[in-house]
Amino acid sequence: MPRYRMVIEYDGRPFVGWQRQANGLSVQGALEAAIAAFTHETVTVKGAGRTDAGVHASGQVAHVDLARDVRPDVLRDAANAHLRPHPVAVLEASAVPEAFDARFSAIRRHYVYRIVDRRPPLALDLGRAWRVPKRLDVAAMDAAAKRLLGRHDFTTFRSAACQASSPLRTLDRLDVERSGDAVLISTNARSFLHNQVRSMAGSLVQVGLGRWSADDLATALARADRSACGPVAPPDGLTLVQVDYPDAGEASPT
Amino acid sequence: MPRYRMVIEYDGRPFVGWQRQANGLSVQGALEAAIAAFTHETVTVKGAGRTDAGVHASGQVAHVDLARDVRPDVLRDAANAHLRPHPVAVLEASAVPEAFDARFSAIRRHYVYRIVDRRPPLALDLGRAWRVPKRLDVAAMDAAAKRLLGRHDFTTFRSAACQASSPLRTLDRLDVERSGDAVLISTNARSFLHNQVRSMAGSLVQVGLGRWSADDLATALARADRSACGPVAPPDGLTLVQVDYPDAGEASPT
Repeated sequence: MPRYRMVIEYDGRPFVGWQRQANGLSVQGALEAAIAAFTHETVTVKGAGRTDAGVHASGQVAHVDLARDVRPDVLRDAANAHLRPHPVAVLEASAVPEAFDARFSAIRRHYVYRIVDRRPPLALDLGRAWRVPKRLDVAAMDAAAKRLLGRHDFTTFRSAACQASSPLRTLDRLDVERSGDAVLISTNARSFLHNQVRSMAGSLVQVGLGRWSADDLATALARADRSACGPVAPPDGLTLVQVDYPDAGEASPT
Repeated sequence: MPRYRMVIEYDGRPFVGWQRQANGLSVQGALEAAIAAFTHETVTVKGAGRTDAGVHASGQVAHVDLARDVRPDVLRDAANAHLRPHPVAVLEASAVPEAFDARFSAIRRHYVYRIVDRRPPLALDLGRAWRVPKRLDVAAMDAAAKRLLGRHDFTTFRSAACQASSPLRTLDRLDVERSGDAVLISTNARSFLHNQVRSMAGSLVQVGLGRWSADDLATALARADRSACGPVAPPDGLTLVQVDYPDAGEASPT
């Protein structure tokens, strides 16, 4: 069966999350329904990152197998036509070898967590950022963030519901910087534990508010205990921005 | 009566526009109801720019008279508390002299029109930008834009419903540049005619698509005829970003 790789953008607000669930519309379900509407077959779309309810993506990657060959640009346009009115768009589609698996071939995931640190509530960024009502010390956050880099047991920053077999992960980037009215936390790793980015973001905000020192953050990590984590940041601010694959699994955009 | 100046942010999507209307919720109406809910008096909020339905603001300015003195930060926070769940936020409030009028004291309005030029539909920017499905020639748009600068009869770029007594306006800035995935049209003037920015944006897109030359744009302006205008750009991409006042009318943020 011909396999296709898609790069996908979505606003996570109206969805129960990436993954198909019994209790509401998922991004995966919306994509499967849109593709089925023009291929007239039941399809399964597999994504690189299983984002939670309310989490956004500007560069999610997924693959799908179809019964017949379809021109990738036709797949992209037809899926987009059938996705309306849901806020999901297929940005690119390309034919890939059957060995390509959006989840298991991925070698790196990139996320950005966006915070607006101001007293007034959000209007234009509602649902798209986490409002923290006090000014954050971004330099302190960035310095503390470096203590989480490298290979560690990230149990502290892992949801109790996480199903990964090991809490060991290697964090390759965790940068905090101010960009306009927002504070951006940019991170990447081969893979993340469930809720890891939101858990790290919540704890970094404790540093930005002056409640935690960098040493406190390092101690929380070393404890490898979920109860040592700061309040988990809400989904609103989180966006999956990019997924990387080895060159062999990359297909050029159409 | 003490007068207060407010800087206001809103997402224009759920509103019939800035101005109070019989047929639905306006931003002005939402603000008046929120302020009345804690001052227990009927108030009138007057804005600097009467934005249309679906048009956004990150820096609208308005003034309101209250029966009694209120601390400006209390006005801001109480208004914000009562504005929920509407996507409107009072960013700043300050006491101003009675001579200050948000509309008539304003000496400059700044707008940004945002376009995303790509084939796939918008998901994350839905309602917040105009999607144009072909790549735009931004350099050609920016060069042509300069032909509209200065004092002109802008009848071509004016809604038939415009109630201004004169079609003469002085355009001080009209710049087109690419910023990330978007094309931004930034403009300012003492005041604009109704639909002027969206009319200019729509005609500039004709230039960006290669359908109009800079001379065509200049000819359309010179004709001073509404039928010479390109298709008017949708409200989604437009944001009122700033309103300027003479120093005397400026009060520092709280």
